[in-house]
Formats: sequence, C-alpha cells, structure tokens
Amino acid sequence: MTIKKTVRRIGVLTGGGDCPGLNAVIRAVVKTAIREYRLSVVGFENGFGGLIQNRARELTEADVAGILPRGGTILGTTNRDNPFSYPMIINGQKVFRDVSDRVVENINIHGIDALIIIGGDGSLTIGKELFEKKGLQVVGVPKTIDNDLSATDQTFGFDTALNTATEAIDKLHTTAESHHRVMILEVMGRYAGWIALESGIAGGADVILIPEIPYRIEKVIEKIIERRNLGKKFSLVVVAEGAKPLGGEMVIQRRVEDSFEPIRLGGIGNAVASQIEEGTGMETRVTVLGHLQRGGIPTAFDRILATRYGTGAVNLVMAGKFGEMVCLRTPHIMSVPLAEAVGELRLVPVDGDIVRTAKQVGISFGD
Amino acid sequence: MTIKKTVRRIGVLTGGGDCPGLNAVIRAVVKTAIREYRLSVVGFENGFGGLIQNRARELTEADVAGILPRGGTILGTTNRDNPFSYPMIINGQKVFRDVSDRVVENINIHGIDALIIIGGDGSLTIGKELFEKKGLQVVGVPKTIDNDLSATDQTFGFDTALNTATEAIDKLHTTAESHHRVMILEVMGRYAGWIALESGIAGGADVILIPEIPYRIEKVIEKIIERRNLGKKFSLVVVAEGAKPLGGEMVIQRRVEDSFEPIRLGGIGNAVASQIEEGTGMETRVTVLGHLQRGGIPTAFDRILATRYGTGAVNLVMAGKFGEMVCLRTPHIMSVPLAEAVGELRLVPVDGDIVRTAKQVGISFGD
Amino acid sequence: MTIKKTVRRIGVLTGGGDCPGLNAVIRAVVKTAIREYRLSVVGFENGFGGLIQNRARELTEADVAGILPRGGTILGTTNRDNPFSYPMIINGQKVFRDVSDRVVENINIHGIDALIIIGGDGSLTIGKELFEKKGLQVVGVPKTIDNDLSATDQTFGFDTALNTATEAIDKLHTTAESHHRVMILEVMGRYAGWIALESGIAGGADVILIPEIPYRIEKVIEKIIERRNLGKKFSLVVVAEGAKPLGGEMVIQRRVEDSFEPIRLGGIGNAVASQIEEGTGMETRVTVLGHLQRGGIPTAFDRILATRYGTGAVNLVMAGKFGEMVCLRTPHIMSVPLAEAVGELRLVPVDGDIVRTAKQVGISFGD
Amino acid sequence: MTIKKTVRRIGVLTGGGDCPGLNAVIRAVVKTAIREYRLSVVGFENGFGGLIQNRARELTEADVAGILPRGGTILGTTNRDNPFSYPMIINGQKVFRDVSDRVVENINIHGIDALIIIGGDGSLTIGKELFEKKGLQVVGVPKTIDNDLSATDQTFGFDTALNTATEAIDKLHTTAESHHRVMILEVMGRYAGWIALESGIAGGADVILIPEIPYRIEKVIEKIIERRNLGKKFSLVVVAEGAKPLGGEMVIQRRVEDSFEPIRLGGIGNAVASQIEEGTGMETRVTVLGHLQRGGIPTAFDRILATRYGTGAVNLVMAGKFGEMVCLRTPHIMSVPLAEAVGELRLVPVDGDIVRTAKQVGISFGD
Repeated sequence: MTIKKTVRRIGVLTGGGDCPGLNAVIRAVVKTAIREYRLSVVGFENGFGGLIQNRARELTEADVAGILPRGGTILGTTNRDNPFSYPMIINGQKVFRDVSDRVVENINIHGIDALIIIGGDGSLTIGKELFEKKGLQVVGVPKTIDNDLSATDQTFGFDTALNTATEAIDKLHTTAESHHRVMILEVMGRYAGWIALESGIAGGADVILIPEIPYRIEKVIEKIIERRNLGKKFSLVVVAEGAKPLGGEMVIQRRVEDSFEPIRLGGIGNAVASQIEEGTGMETRVTVLGHLQRGGIPTAFDRILATRYGTGAVNLVMAGKFGEMVCLRTPHIMSVPLAEAVGELRLVPVDGDIVRTAKQVGISFGD
Repeated sequence: MTIKKTVRRIGVLTGGGDCPGLNAVIRAVVKTAIREYRLSVVGFENGFGGLIQNRARELTEADVAGILPRGGTILGTTNRDNPFSYPMIINGQKVFRDVSDRVVENINIHGIDALIIIGGDGSLTIGKELFEKKGLQVVGVPKTIDNDLSATDQTFGFDTALNTATEAIDKLHTTAESHHRVMILEVMGRYAGWIALESGIAGGADVILIPEIPYRIEKVIEKIIERRNLGKKFSLVVVAEGAKPLGGEMVIQRRVEDSFEPIRLGGIGNAVASQIEEGTGMETRVTVLGHLQRGGIPTAFDRILATRYGTGAVNLVMAGKFGEMVCLRTPHIMSVPLAEAVGELRLVPVDGDIVRTAKQVGISFGD
Repeated sequence: MTIKKTVRRIGVLTGGGDCPGLNAVIRAVVKTAIREYRLSVVGFENGFGGLIQNRARELTEADVAGILPRGGTILGTTNRDNPFSYPMIINGQKVFRDVSDRVVENINIHGIDALIIIGGDGSLTIGKELFEKKGLQVVGVPKTIDNDLSATDQTFGFDTALNTATEAIDKLHTTAESHHRVMILEVMGRYAGWIALESGIAGGADVILIPEIPYRIEKVIEKIIERRNLGKKFSLVVVAEGAKPLGGEMVIQRRVEDSFEPIRLGGIGNAVASQIEEGTGMETRVTVLGHLQRGGIPTAFDRILATRYGTGAVNLVMAGKFGEMVCLRTPHIMSVPLAEAVGELRLVPVDGDIVRTAKQVGISFGD
Repeated sequence: MTIKKTVRRIGVLTGGGDCPGLNAVIRAVVKTAIREYRLSVVGFENGFGGLIQNRARELTEADVAGILPRGGTILGTTNRDNPFSYPMIINGQKVFRDVSDRVVENINIHGIDALIIIGGDGSLTIGKELFEKKGLQVVGVPKTIDNDLSATDQTFGFDTALNTATEAIDKLHTTAESHHRVMILEVMGRYAGWIALESGIAGGADVILIPEIPYRIEKVIEKIIERRNLGKKFSLVVVAEGAKPLGGEMVIQRRVEDSFEPIRLGGIGNAVASQIEEGTGMETRVTVLGHLQRGGIPTAFDRILATRYGTGAVNLVMAGKFGEMVCLRTPHIMSVPLAEAVGELRLVPVDGDIVRTAKQVGISFGD
C-alpha cells in the first residue's frame, strides 16, 4: 500500500483549535509546492470533516496572497470529526463509526499523492493511523498553542499567545497599582504551564501557578502579605487554567482544544481569587484571557517558524519521508516519526533553568 | 466662605475607577501650575481617602517626568471613601459619618488654595458638595471610561478602551471564521452603550446589544440564521454589560466604577450565549474583556484630551472659576458648573446618526 | 444635463495618496448600496486612470468582506491621471489632453447613475468639474491624512497617522534618554502641522515645528540648552515636513500626495538637526517617518468615521444631493457643496486652544 | 591579582548602542543580587564614562520597580569612553590615554567585588582587558541588536527589532499594493543580515538583500519584472544597511553601534531604489527604519532572555566564574570565556535552512 509513486498533487488540511500561524503554514505549503516542485495543491475544509465529506478546493498562489499576517486558517478547522470514530445518527441514536475508507476514496478522487496534516495531538494521531492503517502518504506539521509537544523545541502560535498574555499583564499592572488590588490573569495551559510561566516572567508577576507545580494557597497568601508588608500595595498572579492545589484536582470546565472529546472549562482563576481575597482582605479581580490568546496577527517568530514548517513539510513529501512530522531542533528544521511525536507532553521542568530564574527574581509558585 | 485669595498652592486627587489618561492629566496640572503660574502642587493619595487621612506629597516636575504614556494614576485611586458618608467601626458596628471637616482641616494644614478633583460622577458630586457646603475652591476634571457624561463631548480613556475592544473583536474574528462559531464579546457600559456601539461598528460586528435598545433574543437569533443562510458561517456579537432584553432587567453583578456603592457584575454575555447556542445550534463562545479595558498605554487622542483638561483645570483655578468643571465642546475646552455636570447621563441616541449608520451596514441591535 | 433619474447603479473610485480607512469607506458604500437600497456597485481601478481606461469590476458584499481593518484600498489609487489634463505621447512629445468625454462614455457603458469619489483636494476638484462641466452625478468623500480640509471637523486616516507618529516618539524617547541625545522626528504636514502638533503633545515632545509658526533656530537651541541646564539630558523635536524658518522657504523635495503635480521631498529634519548639533554640541539624530504614516491597521475612530462617510455618501446619492461632499460636523455627518469644500485649507490656529495648551506644558514652537 | 574574596557588593554598567531589554537585565541583576544573595549593587552611569569619572549610584529594588517593560537603560549608555584609550585635550590637542587605573580606583572606592558589564563587542572587549590586565572580577552580558554574536544562540533586543521591522513591512505592504509601487525598507545589519532576512520572511518580502550574499542589481530588477509579468503590481524589498553589490563596497555612512569608532551611515536603500526605478520604470519609495528599531517595549521573548541573562550573570559572579559571559545554548543559560565570545561574528549561513526556506517560498536574494 505504501508504494511511493511520483508526487504530483498534494492535499492539505488544518485540524484542532485555531492558532496564529496556520495561514502562514498553508501559504508556505502552497508556494513551495507550486514554485519549487511544480505540484498542485488541494485544500480540505474544516479539518477531517472536509476529508470525509469531500469538501475541497484547489489552492493557487492567488489564494494564499496576503494571508501571511492573518490569524486563523483560510481552510477552516474543527476539533471534531475523527474518521476512525465518526458520529452519526442511526435509528435516532448517536453512534460512532469508522469512515476512514471514505477518506481514502476522497483522496483518490482528487488524485492526491500525499497529504499534509497541520494539527495537534489529536489530528496527528489520526494522521499516524491513516498512514499506518490506510497506507496514506501522510506528513505532519505540529500545532499546539500550549507549546507542550515533546518532539519539537517550539511550536508556532505560542509566541503570539505569549505576547498577548504579556500585554494583558502590562494592562492589569496599571490597574493593580492604581487601585492597590490583587489582579489575577487566567491563561491557557491545561497540562503544561508554559504560557503562564513565560508571560509571568515577562510581565513581572509576583505569583505564577502552573499544573506542573501544585500550589498551596497559604503560600500564595503569604507571598502577597509579605509584599504588602514591604510597602508594595498590589500583586499580580498568573494562573494556568490547569493549575491545581497540592492534592487537589484540575477544575477546567470546557476548553476548546484538539482533543476530539468534550472537556470542562474555567474556574481556577475565580477559585484562587476568592481564597486570596479572604486570606488577605485585599480587593481581588480576575480576568480570563480565553479566546483572545488564539487570535491576532502572528508575531515575526511565529510567521517564520510556520513558514519553515510549511516548506519543510513539502520537502519531507518530496523526500518520501511519510509518516513523519517536521520539528524544530534549534536552529534546524528536522523530522521525527509521527509515532514518536504524539502522546508525550513537554512539561515545564520543575527544577529547570527558567523556573529557577523566576524564583531568583522573587516569583512564588505557591510551593 | 468663598473669599478668593491669591492662589499659590493647589491640591490634586484622582477618584473612582482607573482610566487611561489619568497620569496625563496629573502631568499637565503639575507642569502648567509650576511653569506657567509658579504655583506649588500637593497630590493626595488614593482619592478622597488621602484627603481624609492626610496622605499627601509634594508633586514636582520630576515626579511627572515620563508618566504621559502610562496607564493608571501615580496618585492611586479608589471608589470608596466619601467624606460625607465615611465608613467607621464604632462599638463593633459599621456606621457612616460625615468627616468633611477633616478634609477642610487637611486642606488648611497644607496651605492649599484650590483643589482639582479628577473623577467620575461620584467624585464630582462630592466635589460639588465640598464647594457648596464647605466653601472649598474646587475645580473638576471629568473622568468616565464609558463616555456617558452629558456635559462634555468626550471623556479621556474612552478612545483607549474603544481601541482595546476593537482589537479584541479583530482577534475573535479569525477564531470565529476558522471555527464557524458565534463569538460574543462583553464590554463595559452599564447605562450607556458607547463602547459596544463604536467597537462593534469598528470591528465589523453583526449584532450589537446596548442598554439603550432593549433586545429581543429571537431577533438576534434570526440575524445569525440569516447570515448562515447566506453562506456566512460565523457571527460576531458585542454586548454591553448593561444590555437587557425587552421588558427584562440588567444582570450586572459587580462592577468597579465610580459609584461609592457595591454593585453586581457579569453574566449578560453568558446569558445571551446560551440562548444563541440553543436557538441556532451553533457553537458559541464568550469573552469578557473586563479590566483589560481600563489598562494600557493611552491613545494619542486620550493623551491630548487629558493634557488639555489638566491645563484647562489650572486655568480655571487661576480665573477663579470654582465649582466648575472643564469640558470639551469640539474643538474648544470650556467649562460648566459642577452642579450641571453631574447626574445626567449621555446615552446613545437611539435614532441618531451612528445607530442609523450601523443599521445601514447591516448590523442588528436585536430590536 | 442634471436630470436625476432613479439611481440603480453607482460607481466608486479612490484617488490620491494612500490613507488608512479607504477600504472601510468602500465597504460601507457597497454594504449600504446593496443592503439598504438594492443598488449595484461598480469599482474603478487606480483612481481616475481606471475611469479613463475603463478598468472596472462589479463589487459585491463578498468583495468587501474582511477589509474593514485593512489599510490601503482594494481598488488601487494614484495621484496622476487627471481626465481634464491627461498625459499622452503624441509624435514623441508628452502633451496633456482633455479626455473627460471618455469618462462620460465609460460611465454610460456601465450604466452608472452616480459616482462616488473618495479623494483629496485634487480628486475632489476633478469631481467638481465632472459634475459642473460634464453633468455627472458626483458625490465626494474627503480624504487627507494631513487633516487639513476646512470643510470637515476631521478626516479619516489622520487618527491612525497620529497614533503611528506618537508611537514613534515613544520609541525615540527611550533612545534619547539612554544616550542623552536630541532626537528629531520628521512627520507629514506640508501646509498644516496637525500631525506634528498633536503627536508632539501626545508624545511629550520638547519642541514642535510646524508650517503655521515659522521658527527661529536660536529659539530651538535655547530651549534645548535650557533643558540641559535643568539636568534634562535629552530633547525630543517633532518637525512637520513643511516647517520653515522665519523668512525662509519650505524645503520639501518630493511628497506623494493628492496633487497631480510633481513636488519635492525631504530635508527639513536634517537641516534642523545639523543646526541643533552645531548649536548645542549634543549628538542629534533624525528619523523620517515617511510612508509608515500611511500604512497600518486603521484605528477604531478612523474605521467608524470612514464607515459613516461611506454610508453617508450613498445617502447623499439617494437624496439626489449631487455635487456635494460628506463632512463631519461633530457629532453629525452633514454635507457641503464640493465647490466650497476644496481649495481652502484648515491650518493650525496659531493662537488656538491646542497651541496654547502645548505652550502651557512647556513645549517650544521656536517662536 | 585574581584572589577571589567573598562577594558582597557588585557593580553594573551598560555600554554601546541602546537595545530593548537592557532595563530587564538591570532589574534581574538587582533583584537576584539583593533577594537571592543579599548583595548590594552599584550602577555606573553612561557606560565606561561613569566608571572613569566615578558617576555612580546605589541601586535598590525600588529603583528597578516597573522598568521591565521599558525600552532603553536607566543607567544611560554610550559608545564612547574606552578606558584604555580615553580622549583628552592636552595642550589643545586631542590625544588618547590609558586611564584604566582610574577604573580600578573607582571600583575600590565603592568597595565593589565584581563588575557586570552589559554590552556589545566593544564593551566586552574592554571587559576582557579589565579582567586580564587589571585583575577586575568581570562578568559579561552580551548585547547586540543585530544578533550577530557567535557565542550565543540569540541576543536580547533582536526579537523586538525584528517585530518592529516586520510591522513596518506590514504597513508598507498596503501602500505598495494600493499604489502599485516598489517599496524598499532599509533595516539595521552592518555585517550580518539577520534582521533583514527574518523580517523579510515574516513580512512576505519579494527581495532581501544582506551583507552575506552580495547582490547583482540585474537579478533584483529581473525578479520585480517577473512579478509584474505575473500580474503582481507591487514588490517589497528589504535591504540590510550593510548589503553590497557583487564586487562592490558597503555604503554605510554613520551608524550608532558599540564600536567606539566613528563610522559612516545610510544610503544603500536609496542607491538600490534609483537603480530599480530606472530598471523597471516603476515608482519606487524608500523608508529607512533607523532608530525606531532600538526603541519600544521589549517583546516577551526579549524580556525573558534579558531576565535570564541578568540572573545568570549574578550566578556566575557567585560561582567565581570571572572573565566569562552568559550565553544561551537553547534551552539553557550557559557561560563562555569573554576571550572566546568577542571578535567572531555569527553571520547568516548562506546555504543554511533559513535562506533555503526563503528561496523556496520565492524570495530573491539578488544572487
């Protein structure tokens, strides 16, 4: 099934949660395919949904003109529609069916020789199975705004989200200072606390709570009171949505991610706020940054990394390296098997350089 | 009591909610007082609290160097501490007392000849009473981020908040488009919907809900379904926190404003979201912009208006126009009596130019 | 000739220099025309060039989707191609001919009943002549990034340029401070100094030089030395490109504007810099902001004003008010005859509120 | 001479050109020294000038509060004042003298045990000599906005400059497109073209000219004409100030860098523009970004790297690793001897990944 014929036509789709830089990847895929290798390109709409329902369109250079600085994805995306477990209503009942044969069929209808999947853990796992079980010539491009993929040094979208969160802290800073309040910012990061950690350092936070370091609320309160005793009348706290107290549970209620499963979202910021207000007697306010972290004009770094990924993915296709995924091993773009890439999270090293730096400039992690 | 002696020394304070441009006003007051009129300036800390408890400091040009582009107020502010109704614990009971004599005393201790109060409706009402009842030579500078003061064409801080809200809509746009969702942005505006209205037009929203135009949820749902039927797979809805359904009540839970009274905040965005999700079957997400609207670097417009207000307030002092407040009557800085200035809100004219423009480009107000 | 038939189809073009908000006007014209009045819309490419050479395309709502926050104009623009004096090569010689009959012909070919011209002084003058001499049913939308049109309170694009200039001053501030230098920023403003004046106040400049107030270099040097004597080790100077010394000439060399004539640009910033460096002995550096002032994402204010103008222009068409131009008379959108609108510049009032405010906070105009 | 006593008090200075993140380094040095190690800190003003003339002040946590997001350096900086070759006027003649003994003396007067030098190649070379020849316990922090230091993966300030340049390209894009012009952006990069290369990729430039790849103007013109023939009516060209034609010379006239020597600046952008305008007949405009690249609020990345460097430098001091410099070996902060760190430039690899990526998406380097 994996007989590699000459590649003349490739498909591309974006899956999972929205992320700044997706358009830059699509643009680089299209430009490299057409200019460098004289290939044609088909884009599937709305992730695997388009692949299953055969919603597709030809992508030319004109289609990708001007999209480099735009957030989102011109192809649409979704975190539903797994072809190996596709929801249907049969006899009035919602059931899940394997419709992966339809995917193969649609790939053949379009005469596509290779498929580039831009997505997170969920999408890349599907990609891996399409490669292994269905023999599709798949190449992956990793996407996770949380930057929690172990197989690559960094993922695009993270730098933009990080700057959005840092600007939010800058804005809360003046309010905190003027009103002598504790201001809490809740940011993304279900399992890995990178956005909270890095925006907290960049924004000059006093407390950072991340999933990797379970916190004790007394320690947090102690830090804020210590600051007050030193004459500092306000404090800034950055909380990852997946932060949890020592011995406690995560309180995420609903989060839009590349999970193909409903999950729960929100709440940790509020929970921490009540405890701080009670424990310190200081006015405490919460801001949940939410979807703003996924939007906006990508930073220069994200545009460059996304461009390198897109170009790299086409190069992998032309080298016949199917079942692999592009990755960054600073300063080079390399590749790893999808099988290795998915599944393992890149968590914040609890005793690593960055946490140590944060502690040395006086930031508390509540531990 | 209102014998006007030669002014040699003025006081200044900021009261009520944080607002971009407060520092620019303070800077202009200090520079104009010192450079133009050879006065000295005393700043009171944390609004009327500092005036009651005599927390004050001399302000020199060095103190205001570099603060023009900074959000917040170097003097601190609060929306508590009304000198005519000041909370105290007496015999274990919280009671409210008139401590306005202490204010007069502290003004005399510092040898202050005139007091500039930068604040919203609450603070300016106190200013009016200090002028009328206590004979203090008060001049006011209006501050309301909601831009809802009838006595002036525009207030500083509004333009910055408007741009922050517009940028947020820009960010939500790409996510809405990529995921085919309804995205809701809840912005400030308890009684007047200016921020929602103007950011909605600037951001290209499809629906805008404001307090002045009670909405019917069926109309909102109708609009979104109409768009979907035209092939537009997403919609953007901007909701002022004070928006309310026809015949319904405002659902604000707690809002930090210049009210000197606790109020309730949040929720209208979520309420509308549930109804839209149910009514359209489309994924709907809410972002509450909250405190981010009060922070950040002031826009050029706000810095200029704030500077003109600050300079204008000192000019009023020197002209002996006490009990008055600076205001903008485009393109001039003028003044009005505090008695006229407070109390009356500048609401969005329901049949005015701007609402009509919005409707003509296809925006629904749910009416 | 001015027999008004029922309007069913309108044309639109953009002329003169690029300006943030042009796309927002086009979008509002198209949306209002189609949604509100069921008209169809034709867009001419590259200003009057497209009207002469009949380069045109139908504009639908899909064409204007997503262009609200984008700088530039999807129609293209140019500051050449006056139909009453159109350059041609005849017998190897460049000559200028009246080709306005071709314009009328093309208007008729497309079945256009009214033409909306978005442009500056040059374009609107042509519009006036097409209305007066050729009987075309013309409506104008004023565009000048310099904000120097007497017939309207403000023009779109100015607020964006002002914020770009102010951010540039903010950036130069830190360099000036760190290196103890005099930093000069040269901004647009050939005849009117609005951008220099307002960005100078907003950015906290020490000296502002504008065309309306001829400067004496000794006064500028004096101000900088006075600051140094007060221990302030740097100074910021904002210079409008049209600033000139008392009794001297403007030194603009080439400037891209809506002039339909070649002009000269640059140099005043450098001229002033050499004199300051010589007169004070301080390191002095110049930044010419140039084209950056015309680009970028329009501010909320500019998007709203542009939208109101676009909608207002279509309303004028439907009211049969030809030969008129939309204008802002705060807070209303009104109209004035094109004949009144063009020709007279709105200069900075030398003794007005704003200049006085600037002087009161210590800014020197070199006078 | 290098007898290491217990460190109780450290000095810090910033040398060379202004760079976003300098304040973040100073803040981290002060916080880490005081909080983590109970040291005291002395700041010298204006680079080595302050060390020679003994202009110094104690730095406390209060001094560094709020400076994290601010560009520039609170200590001041200069690219003059080499203590081993210090300019003096003797008998009316300007001569250069070794005054390094004064440096040692001042270090002793303040009881300083170790000196942290934050600077570029010039400053670090002086640091190396103070360590080697004078036995001062020096630790270095590398600073170069051009990112051209071989000893570290990245330097702070570069990411901010890169984003400033990318935003400028975004702004020029709309003007180029609207006017069908060639727009040229001249950016920093005397010897290494990193800013031009990366901003060019991020901004979607069509041509990038860097010092490492001498260009042939015919190739540049060819590329622009090729685009025009494909219907693309504009082109964007990014030029590093040090770019030069094949066989030609660099034309920099005066550049403010860490050189301790006067150099020449400007001109390559204009030179290329004339040739393009002549060769293509298209309107061509130049923007020189200049000092704007050094200013502004540092990006999150730069604030974090600067914080890690500052903390890392104090850690080096406490570990007794004198004569060394902190560096980034992704993802770790490490150190290298100053002797290795200076002198060798990190140039753009002409056949590296990034240049190849750029070529694959269709960017020409004029080679």
